[in-house]
Amino acid sequence: MSDQERIAVENLIRSGPDLASGTIEEVRANYDAMAAITPVASDIHVEAATLGGVPCEYVRAPGAARDRLVLYFHGGGYTIGSLTSHRGLVALLARAAGAPVLAVNYRLAPEHPFPAAHDDALAVYRAVLEAGTRAEQIAFAGDSAGGGLAVVTLMRARDAGLPMPACAFLMSPFLDLAGTGESVHENADIDVIVRPGMIEGMGGAYLQGVATTHPHASPLYGDPTGLPPLLVHVGTHEAILDDSLRFVRKAAMAHVSTELSVYPRMPHVWQMFSGMLEEGRRSLDEAGAFIARQIGKA
Amino acid sequence: MSDQERIAVENLIRSGPDLASGTIEEVRANYDAMAAITPVASDIHVEAATLGGVPCEYVRAPGAARDRLVLYFHGGGYTIGSLTSHRGLVALLARAAGAPVLAVNYRLAPEHPFPAAHDDALAVYRAVLEAGTRAEQIAFAGDSAGGGLAVVTLMRARDAGLPMPACAFLMSPFLDLAGTGESVHENADIDVIVRPGMIEGMGGAYLQGVATTHPHASPLYGDPTGLPPLLVHVGTHEAILDDSLRFVRKAAMAHVSTELSVYPRMPHVWQMFSGMLEEGRRSLDEAGAFIARQIGKA
Repeated sequence: MSDQERIAVENLIRSGPDLASGTIEEVRANYDAMAAITPVASDIHVEAATLGGVPCEYVRAPGAARDRLVLYFHGGGYTIGSLTSHRGLVALLARAAGAPVLAVNYRLAPEHPFPAAHDDALAVYRAVLEAGTRAEQIAFAGDSAGGGLAVVTLMRARDAGLPMPACAFLMSPFLDLAGTGESVHENADIDVIVRPGMIEGMGGAYLQGVATTHPHASPLYGDPTGLPPLLVHVGTHEAILDDSLRFVRKAAMAHVSTELSVYPRMPHVWQMFSGMLEEGRRSLDEAGAFIARQIGKA
Repeated sequence: MSDQERIAVENLIRSGPDLASGTIEEVRANYDAMAAITPVASDIHVEAATLGGVPCEYVRAPGAARDRLVLYFHGGGYTIGSLTSHRGLVALLARAAGAPVLAVNYRLAPEHPFPAAHDDALAVYRAVLEAGTRAEQIAFAGDSAGGGLAVVTLMRARDAGLPMPACAFLMSPFLDLAGTGESVHENADIDVIVRPGMIEGMGGAYLQGVATTHPHASPLYGDPTGLPPLLVHVGTHEAILDDSLRFVRKAAMAHVSTELSVYPRMPHVWQMFSGMLEEGRRSLDEAGAFIARQIGKA
């Protein structure tokens, strides 16, 4: 990457729609409008579906393996984000992994606070298993709050006695709603997306009084024992960089197969800007290969 | 990997030569004898050389790129290990990376205490640069104490104003001679190689009174700012697992490009047993691809 590319992306984000003020409807609409940055290629097939009572959509690239599945949880601090906002990113991941992606339109706060999001996520996973897809053929993936949701869903599925999927790929996962990472302060000035106050604001809207350290809200405080192989990608220009670093350490100490790639100077979920950033494409290529390898063992 | 393969390796290690008692000459001879586990293939070319006054050897596989170089630092707690003990591992890495490896026979403690080892390592790096190899075409690699030595040499080279090599690959690096990692206690019973007392014993022989937290002894306490891209491979059955986990976190917080793969249930420097463990071959394949990509940019 050239510094010019990175600075262009940072300027685009800074000059983009305001995600920190306005009514929740306005912020959601602004966030969805950012999807135009990553258009969906014309050969991508999108199909609406309902699983476990939750609206979802299948996103398929040509040649996708029919018997494999990536379950995708979008980001947006549990309060914004949708199938629309993340369709471009999901399509890139679908192509890179060579598998259909099922994107989950879980309920958002503040209308639907904790635990609605992971109730929905778990319901979709159950429905996918009941429909006959084997756990070993399923990968979880998610970005930001969706990365946290993926981990919480793994923990809840494990505790419910469900089989673990083959793996999980987490982009810039939001794992500590208590905001205690060293990077929250150290990187406050360089993170152009997760601005000061957003962790408390979005977390508060979602938790509505539930403890920020509840392991189903902040899986950093949960037990990672028995989780499937994890791949975590995070940038060093992120306020929540340390969410990933601390979680990886904890997972490794619990004997989980854990891979981490730290991308210097990348902003939060830079894969959203893959059209402008070579690092975005590289991250998705690496993740696609990881997912294909893990679900290809089945 | 099957559990049978892993258990066979653990039994081999447990029934192998005693590395914790005997004269230093006996322990070194026993350690060198373990090299028989990883024989050198017949198509590998080995050539002795002296660089910066330090005895070394070039290890080349067929088709190695002539203008690239991997500088290799062997493990052995700064007190044992040699060109002989690690020649098989070095040969596997040479083939995987597609580049010649220059293995460094740095001086050992207790005869040659701190800072002899990294004085030698830095002298070899200077000599390689002065001989005309460009820093961008050089990778550092090392295992255990050699991984620590690689990082210390990066830091000293940076502080001396030398250019950074393209990257460094660290296998189970020994980065904290103070032994403060959580895994030192948590994994004391499952690490079949780094037995209780070895960190203090080998560290004491090397340091001879220098503080265990001196950053040139324990780079975990040094400043990783400006280091080149790092790849760290470590197993979860290691007493010094947390050396890697804490160092990766610190490097990432300093904006270093950092990749980590944590291999479940693998023992210290399991790549030494690549003939018996699929994970050893996988680790070296991944590292070879990483090195080739990084030094291939030049």
